[in-house]
Amino acid sequence: MDYVYGPGRNHLFVPGPVNIPEQVLRAMNRNNEDYRSPAIPAMTKVLLEDVKKIFKTTTGTPFLIPTTGTGAWESALTNTLSPGDRIVSFLIGQFSLLWIDQQQRLNFNVDVVESEWGRGADLDILESKLASDTAHTIKAICIVHNETATGVTNNLATVRKILDAYQHPALLLVDGVSSICALDFRMDEWGVDVALTGSQKALSLPTGLGIVLASAKALEASKTAKSVRVFFDWNDYLKFYKLGTYWPYTPSIQLLYGLRAALDLIFEEGLDNVILRHNRLGTATRLAVEAWGLKNCTQKEEWYSDTVTAVVVPPYIDSSEIVKRAWKRYNLSLGLGLNKVAGKVFRIGHLGHLNELQLLGCLAGVEMILKDVGYPVKLGSGVAAASAYLQNNIPLIPSRI
Amino acid sequence: MDYVYGPGRNHLFVPGPVNIPEQVLRAMNRNNEDYRSPAIPAMTKVLLEDVKKIFKTTTGTPFLIPTTGTGAWESALTNTLSPGDRIVSFLIGQFSLLWIDQQQRLNFNVDVVESEWGRGADLDILESKLASDTAHTIKAICIVHNETATGVTNNLATVRKILDAYQHPALLLVDGVSSICALDFRMDEWGVDVALTGSQKALSLPTGLGIVLASAKALEASKTAKSVRVFFDWNDYLKFYKLGTYWPYTPSIQLLYGLRAALDLIFEEGLDNVILRHNRLGTATRLAVEAWGLKNCTQKEEWYSDTVTAVVVPPYIDSSEIVKRAWKRYNLSLGLGLNKVAGKVFRIGHLGHLNELQLLGCLAGVEMILKDVGYPVKLGSGVAAASAYLQNNIPLIPSRI
Amino acid sequence: MDYVYGPGRNHLFVPGPVNIPEQVLRAMNRNNEDYRSPAIPAMTKVLLEDVKKIFKTTTGTPFLIPTTGTGAWESALTNTLSPGDRIVSFLIGQFSLLWIDQQQRLNFNVDVVESEWGRGADLDILESKLASDTAHTIKAICIVHNETATGVTNNLATVRKILDAYQHPALLLVDGVSSICALDFRMDEWGVDVALTGSQKALSLPTGLGIVLASAKALEASKTAKSVRVFFDWNDYLKFYKLGTYWPYTPSIQLLYGLRAALDLIFEEGLDNVILRHNRLGTATRLAVEAWGLKNCTQKEEWYSDTVTAVVVPPYIDSSEIVKRAWKRYNLSLGLGLNKVAGKVFRIGHLGHLNELQLLGCLAGVEMILKDVGYPVKLGSGVAAASAYLQNNIPLIPSRI
Amino acid sequence: MDYVYGPGRNHLFVPGPVNIPEQVLRAMNRNNEDYRSPAIPAMTKVLLEDVKKIFKTTTGTPFLIPTTGTGAWESALTNTLSPGDRIVSFLIGQFSLLWIDQQQRLNFNVDVVESEWGRGADLDILESKLASDTAHTIKAICIVHNETATGVTNNLATVRKILDAYQHPALLLVDGVSSICALDFRMDEWGVDVALTGSQKALSLPTGLGIVLASAKALEASKTAKSVRVFFDWNDYLKFYKLGTYWPYTPSIQLLYGLRAALDLIFEEGLDNVILRHNRLGTATRLAVEAWGLKNCTQKEEWYSDTVTAVVVPPYIDSSEIVKRAWKRYNLSLGLGLNKVAGKVFRIGHLGHLNELQLLGCLAGVEMILKDVGYPVKLGSGVAAASAYLQNNIPLIPSRI
Repeated sequence: MDYVYGPGRNHLFVPGPVNIPEQVLRAMNRNNEDYRSPAIPAMTKVLLEDVKKIFKTTTGTPFLIPTTGTGAWESALTNTLSPGDRIVSFLIGQFSLLWIDQQQRLNFNVDVVESEWGRGADLDILESKLASDTAHTIKAICIVHNETATGVTNNLATVRKILDAYQHPALLLVDGVSSICALDFRMDEWGVDVALTGSQKALSLPTGLGIVLASAKALEASKTAKSVRVFFDWNDYLKFYKLGTYWPYTPSIQLLYGLRAALDLIFEEGLDNVILRHNRLGTATRLAVEAWGLKNCTQKEEWYSDTVTAVVVPPYIDSSEIVKRAWKRYNLSLGLGLNKVAGKVFRIGHLGHLNELQLLGCLAGVEMILKDVGYPVKLGSGVAAASAYLQNNIPLIPSRI
Repeated sequence: MDYVYGPGRNHLFVPGPVNIPEQVLRAMNRNNEDYRSPAIPAMTKVLLEDVKKIFKTTTGTPFLIPTTGTGAWESALTNTLSPGDRIVSFLIGQFSLLWIDQQQRLNFNVDVVESEWGRGADLDILESKLASDTAHTIKAICIVHNETATGVTNNLATVRKILDAYQHPALLLVDGVSSICALDFRMDEWGVDVALTGSQKALSLPTGLGIVLASAKALEASKTAKSVRVFFDWNDYLKFYKLGTYWPYTPSIQLLYGLRAALDLIFEEGLDNVILRHNRLGTATRLAVEAWGLKNCTQKEEWYSDTVTAVVVPPYIDSSEIVKRAWKRYNLSLGLGLNKVAGKVFRIGHLGHLNELQLLGCLAGVEMILKDVGYPVKLGSGVAAASAYLQNNIPLIPSRI
Repeated sequence: MDYVYGPGRNHLFVPGPVNIPEQVLRAMNRNNEDYRSPAIPAMTKVLLEDVKKIFKTTTGTPFLIPTTGTGAWESALTNTLSPGDRIVSFLIGQFSLLWIDQQQRLNFNVDVVESEWGRGADLDILESKLASDTAHTIKAICIVHNETATGVTNNLATVRKILDAYQHPALLLVDGVSSICALDFRMDEWGVDVALTGSQKALSLPTGLGIVLASAKALEASKTAKSVRVFFDWNDYLKFYKLGTYWPYTPSIQLLYGLRAALDLIFEEGLDNVILRHNRLGTATRLAVEAWGLKNCTQKEEWYSDTVTAVVVPPYIDSSEIVKRAWKRYNLSLGLGLNKVAGKVFRIGHLGHLNELQLLGCLAGVEMILKDVGYPVKLGSGVAAASAYLQNNIPLIPSRI
Repeated sequence: MDYVYGPGRNHLFVPGPVNIPEQVLRAMNRNNEDYRSPAIPAMTKVLLEDVKKIFKTTTGTPFLIPTTGTGAWESALTNTLSPGDRIVSFLIGQFSLLWIDQQQRLNFNVDVVESEWGRGADLDILESKLASDTAHTIKAICIVHNETATGVTNNLATVRKILDAYQHPALLLVDGVSSICALDFRMDEWGVDVALTGSQKALSLPTGLGIVLASAKALEASKTAKSVRVFFDWNDYLKFYKLGTYWPYTPSIQLLYGLRAALDLIFEEGLDNVILRHNRLGTATRLAVEAWGLKNCTQKEEWYSDTVTAVVVPPYIDSSEIVKRAWKRYNLSLGLGLNKVAGKVFRIGHLGHLNELQLLGCLAGVEMILKDVGYPVKLGSGVAAASAYLQNNIPLIPSRI
């Protein structure tokens, strides 16, 4: 595969798929197995329990679906809703847009609440909609926890608070694709009814597992939801859970072992330490952006994302040139601006199996690229700002103390 | 993972997932990559062309969907049909049963043609149905090429002949999950409209890719098909094909490189040599079964399957004991009897990356197990019968001549 | 690497290098590390303790030398002996011959005791030599535990008995290359002074580690031994053992992790179970050879080897044709006859990570090859004889009961 | 292996063992093979030819010895010299010291020319020694091309010029362990008689191959050299080269395939581009050191090493604290100061499969560590200096233009 060869490691800073730990690559480097032997169900049983921990739920029911995030979305919607159901959905960037597109094509009655790209979900509008919905026509609220296209994190605790304030029974469906395992996510505490992520994001696995957690209320809803579904039907899983064989169709043996290894690493580091690490990486990135004199696409601090930063470039620069140049000259992979912000932002993904020195290498690279494309950056300025913060905040590695 | 440890290699003879070649494991042993870089689309473009070869089509349009065979089924159906459409579907074993279950849940009007398990699709009934359907109410014929549960191969050339004889415009949708890349499959010649397989079968990859090929007629049908679909919608792919970026959502980087390696191995051996090898493996297995004095679940030679053999055990033996014992004592994985033939048959999968000596090791193991469970087999008899045939038929390995 | 491609797995039945377990391949699939960090010494410390267990010694001092068996031989000799020293050495096949060649080139005074190839060391001659050596001019006895070229196992307990009977202080240096971890080897009980093996034999690793164990007496001898040595000097290791850094030069990080995994597997199976498994594999092979009407190169049962069987072919057959054909037609790797037995024997290696069904596949292959080259074997006969024995003797896999 | 776990990648900047490319890891991720089959000799034949290219020799004879650099040294010496031979050897750091220790223990008459650590070989003394040696009592000149302990590169062209000026027939034996494949090395042009390296250095493989190239003159010398040698005897290799089987003892199958992949990568990048890349990495590192206000251990520019930089710390800092802290807090592996410079320098290895952004991440890490240990560094200063240079000098990646 000569096409992509470059000396040294590729610096992978797209917001997914992200770097896979060597331990996980090793765990997946294996032949197929009979998934009907006693081994795979025994392994699956423990995996299902452990997956709940990264969603911070004890009451949710997990589904490991051989699909992508898009499929996980479809699973969340079709199992809980019926065609024509009214749902409130927040459009704040490309990925929430795509989810809304799916919601519409699945024939829900989507009440779209749009924000300017770079801003979070407009929760005031949510409040007013709920306030006026005394008949409870709204069946579900659909929201991304973290919009990967703009680097905006929504406040789910507030969403729950509003729902509770109005004692509104709408289901809360959350896309946690670029948040779960990196940002603080509290399924039970926030009363999330369906939460989902994809394996290639903060879990640092290959693409291929859509991980969906359903609350008891969501499971109850699935009994009456009339959306047509077969491949994504939770019921097929539940039937096999009862049998103790777990799999309605052939799982990827490799991804199961990979998930096992990925969870082991997360538990060894400690989920809360993982979240703190992402906060360090996010903060350091934002300090660098500031030092470069550039703007964060995210308009307010309350929405800052610790997993991805979208950097706004001056109007005289095409951000896609930055991404191209990163790949062609520095073996660095950055995220493109998408749709409305195409050409206007580039994105630095800082999630998953990643540490501070990797990030500083990336930031040093971005500085050179900015200079390449004519932006008058002071080389070293971003790295200096980031490392001043990091040098005060990086903890010792516990296993090495 | 102590649970499954046993000395030496596991002998994997379930009809999927099957043994992965070392070359493919190596190709997949890699970090994630940015799928939006120029490299992945360039690779995908060639893969899509090459995938057509294993379906023997030059006119089909391929879709590589991050899903399993069950998802591939759903893709075939929902893209070409509308709720209420009448389809003729053949029930001859567990997997055709599951597909029919899906067809019914997707709200098609399924005209089920059932055969005794162990027999092929009843094409006489197909003929009479077509003959009487002058109004062309039948929109599609759904048929498995090879029923994995019973080891029965249907004759697709005959299906096409019958359709042509009545100039019937019904779509021909074929499940080639346990056939394509192992049995002779001729999409264009047989006028198949949708053909599909899964990566973990004869392609010898991990689970995770549903590979679906659509004829021009099927693509045309997709423009008016009213089944609700998003994740499985061909149109999303076609849009990205035109853009030259190919992927509507994140593919598994590892499976793409794995598919590349798998196709390279198949082309190096020669697809027709691969098919001949499967014929040798199937014939040898059947000769062994005969020598043991046991019956093949497949009732007639015309339906014999070269990818899986279901062996009928005497009534005083529970075939699931054979499967358990194989795993517990011999590190051998055999296929269970499913549903109607549970307890009555065990299955030997002989597909994918497999050679004759591997099969003979399996057959020697089955002989010992048969003795373990009280069947008066003459040890060595099956191996003798199989190797008498193989010794006359195995070719020299071309690269070593 | 097209040159070696063949469908399915290569059946590796040479007596080294042998099949590597998937678990070990995984453990070795890793980047380099700084061997001066705290991690590698911590790991090495435990490895050195654990390596002693497979030699059944509590008092020996282990050396893990980045070399092959030939280097391990040199380490054993040069650390304990001085040029001109008289040693008694047994020539019973190609590998003992090569060791003797090394002994002579290292300027020892080698008293060669030759046996016909196919027979064990002549211990009567040893006895008479010791009896007459009241002046203790013999400084060492050099003997292979298992001669890989002929499949002959020497009785080391008897060697010790004879030495003790004459209270002779000669060092006992043992080549355990094709025995340790497969045959019962008791360093302490048998008073072995230097024992050695190579990683690519029964330990089932890649080539690259010569593992040498020295008794207290051998270490004492090393203080006065005048043979010139640097790379192989035990003293360099001992110096670093004291420092707790362990490595006088850069070790292979991969082989250390591989050794860790290999030992873990052996301990999980249980060393004595590993030895029993090899006895089953050896017995089964010999029964097959007998059923084929062929002779074992090993002339007496007392010398039968459980790790390799050299099979004598009729004079009208060239055994190297069998080996060629095995590779070219059946993807089976057998051992050639070497030197005096070239063309006359072929060898079946049955050591390392291997189970009974793998062996039966090999035996079925050998039968077909014998027929290919014109030997009137009854197909299935060897497999039948072997499996009749195995079916009575294979235990359940403990982790699966 | 919890002991070493840390989030994200380990940043490996010791001057060996170095980072292994993913492509090489993949190539080595394989089972053993019969090395006596036709495949391995065919592969070896080409490898031996290709290895000559990285030494820039067309006339040398290569030996791939299963050993480390220390063993390669021993091979160079014992094959060309006899005990008592007078050799001139340069002591300029820990690794030349160790080689001299070996030379003395092998009983050569070593004429040691010592330089202050941080300075290159004193070639004036060489000149005076050769001038006075009209009787040609000096049999060999032993010199390291690059002293790994101090980051000093000797000028081999000058050594050759001096030898030629005096028409002195002494052999020129060169340790190229931390130079070959990274620094410009010209075996034929410089009349080097034995050159050697180890696989874990700039070739970016695991430890385990000592690669030794002998000139025709060296081979001639080996015919009369009286040093005792067996494992390291070139003659054993030459015998098997003639037979076309190549291996006197079992090679590591994995390292052969790894070497194949490593050479393929080097040839794809272009050896001269590899050398230029190392020059960029070395220059950038030195600029950073200067910007930090620290001294390079190497005293003059003419000796600057492009593979390793030894950085002198102020007297109030213990450099080993820097190395410890790097590992414990930043997952960064730096090289310790050894022997005379222990505590006084730390080393940054910048050789092998490495690119500029990886280096900048390391430099950013070093800055934070320097601050941690109380050195008043300006954060970002080194990165700024390095990247100002790099931004002007990094070429586009050819395969991506």
